[in-house]
Amino acid sequence: MSLLENLHWRYATKKMNGTAVPKEKLDYILEAARMAPSSSGLQQYKVIVISDQALLEKIKDVAYNQSQIADCSHLLVFAAWDEYTEERISNVFNYIMDERNLPHSTMDGYKNTILDLYATKGKEWQAHHAAKQSYISFAMAIAAAAEQKVDATPIEGFLPEKLDELLKLKGTGYKSTVILPLGYREEDNDWLLNMKKVRMPTESFITEMTLADAADTAELPMDINLDVFIQK
Amino acid sequence: MSLLENLHWRYATKKMNGTAVPKEKLDYILEAARMAPSSSGLQQYKVIVISDQALLEKIKDVAYNQSQIADCSHLLVFAAWDEYTEERISNVFNYIMDERNLPHSTMDGYKNTILDLYATKGKEWQAHHAAKQSYISFAMAIAAAAEQKVDATPIEGFLPEKLDELLKLKGTGYKSTVILPLGYREEDNDWLLNMKKVRMPTESFITEMTLADAADTAELPMDINLDVFIQK
Repeated sequence: MSLLENLHWRYATKKMNGTAVPKEKLDYILEAARMAPSSSGLQQYKVIVISDQALLEKIKDVAYNQSQIADCSHLLVFAAWDEYTEERISNVFNYIMDERNLPHSTMDGYKNTILDLYATKGKEWQAHHAAKQSYISFAMAIAAAAEQKVDATPIEGFLPEKLDELLKLKGTGYKSTVILPLGYREEDNDWLLNMKKVRMPTESFITEMTLADAADTAELPMDINLDVFIQK
Repeated sequence: MSLLENLHWRYATKKMNGTAVPKEKLDYILEAARMAPSSSGLQQYKVIVISDQALLEKIKDVAYNQSQIADCSHLLVFAAWDEYTEERISNVFNYIMDERNLPHSTMDGYKNTILDLYATKGKEWQAHHAAKQSYISFAMAIAAAAEQKVDATPIEGFLPEKLDELLKLKGTGYKSTVILPLGYREEDNDWLLNMKKVRMPTESFITEMTLADAADTAELPMDINLDVFIQK
């Protein structure tokens, strides 16, 4: 099945049946999450995998009692950097340069550009920015699960501070951003399964624009060259 | 090819050759973006498609002169709500209820829950929250392009306020969040193509946790029931 067919097959499963997801399918989904692109290639997030029933029950308590969290096979918790620091960026870039057999200094200019751009934005902006990258990875996990015919429920409905406390994330530099229970639908007991999947119509969702639709802007400031290294 | 193989095939193309992406492939990519899940099913974003060369040149000017923007076939601009308002949420929910032949009032409780949750967070948080949803759609477009063997460059390196000005987004309730040129790699002239794709090793990216690793939390406040309707 194509990605598009898989997107039609999937839905935000409301009731799971407790069946275990085989390890090879779980590993495939995690590998897709790992291979997602991220801003500047920083991979400023990670994934915590939980299948321990007792811990899942505790997480359910901080996630509005949503049943999928206890009835899933594995819960993926996406967690992103809480801020950008020179040390964190250097660690990633140095690792990339080592893997590419290039000197660490290759990335110095770009690293400074990033720090200049981000440092001015404040810590909350930085955490949001890192969290956005985790959503790309999260989306790849959703697509990979659908490809494997594993059900998944994208969930933002949890108390992130409580979850961070529970998972001892405080002080690690990571904050939980979004969670994804993986498992199998309980067909007879899922009110959403047979509801029509609704999306904005194409004509509202997509707009085509030409120069005639654009503003007549004058000169614009161009003082940074980012065409050095973005992401791969 | 599987999603994972497609993720290995793709890379953030640095140099495109100007070849046009066929309409059926473009439509497929846009349809994958449209079918992405979003928080509460609100689809609080849309996609602007630009192939007009003169407009692409102007966008390049506000995007650090990155050549892909002028050399792509089509540029996708993702734009998300700048805030949550009762009217916007009602419009979407009413549409969904109409499509499902349910009374509009079905969603009243959930709508108020969302407004209560989001209104306390401030407009900047709301814009970030909507932007995050657009990243899921963005990721689906990246995956769909790779499946179609269309190259794409995920780009955050642009001046969003200038782009919003250029595309006359100000006052529409949408802000640009991220852009994606679609086209074809110029193999002989792309420095990134033959660089090793580097990701954090699995053992750093994935952490498994059990109850023994978690904090010993006491009771936690549970006063909202979100298990009403999330997304499909």
